[in-house]
Amino acid sequence: MDLITILGLAAGTLTTAAFLPQMFKTWQSKSAKDVSFSMLITFNIGIFLWLLYGIFLQALPIILTNALTLLFNMIILYLKVKYS
Amino acid sequence: MDLITILGLAAGTLTTAAFLPQMFKTWQSKSAKDVSFSMLITFNIGIFLWLLYGIFLQALPIILTNALTLLFNMIILYLKVKYS
Repeated sequence: MDLITILGLAAGTLTTAAFLPQMFKTWQSKSAKDVSFSMLITFNIGIFLWLLYGIFLQALPIILTNALTLLFNMIILYLKVKYS
Repeated sequence: MDLITILGLAAGTLTTAAFLPQMFKTWQSKSAKDVSFSMLITFNIGIFLWLLYGIFLQALPIILTNALTLLFNMIILYLKVKYS
């Protein structure tokens, strides 16, 4: 694997894993007042389009990272709606 | 431009523009208590790596969307630190 691919994988891992602490924070504090609803809706639709893009290109790294990012952000959106 | 490229551009536009409402919400409410600090740090580092990845590949769409996403999220991080 070349260095650029490793860089891309590291980038994808971080931008996906980043939403885990947000998910746990919202779950624990039962509050997402400061998290923008418009941001969550727009981001979830965008990530869903990235997932379709990965499926069309049959690009496994794009599919995997965006499937996980979508899952985490759907949960954050659910918690936001539940606690507001 | 083929349909898959248009899909990718739409996805990138949404996942970048998503952070504008979060930025304005935090700026207006002067509160980011519910926004995870770990999420912002991890996400900013990840987006910085995506930017480097785009620069190495000389891929303008990756460079442009990630430069803007990084700018918006650095501002959100700055506001988070400022108002906490």
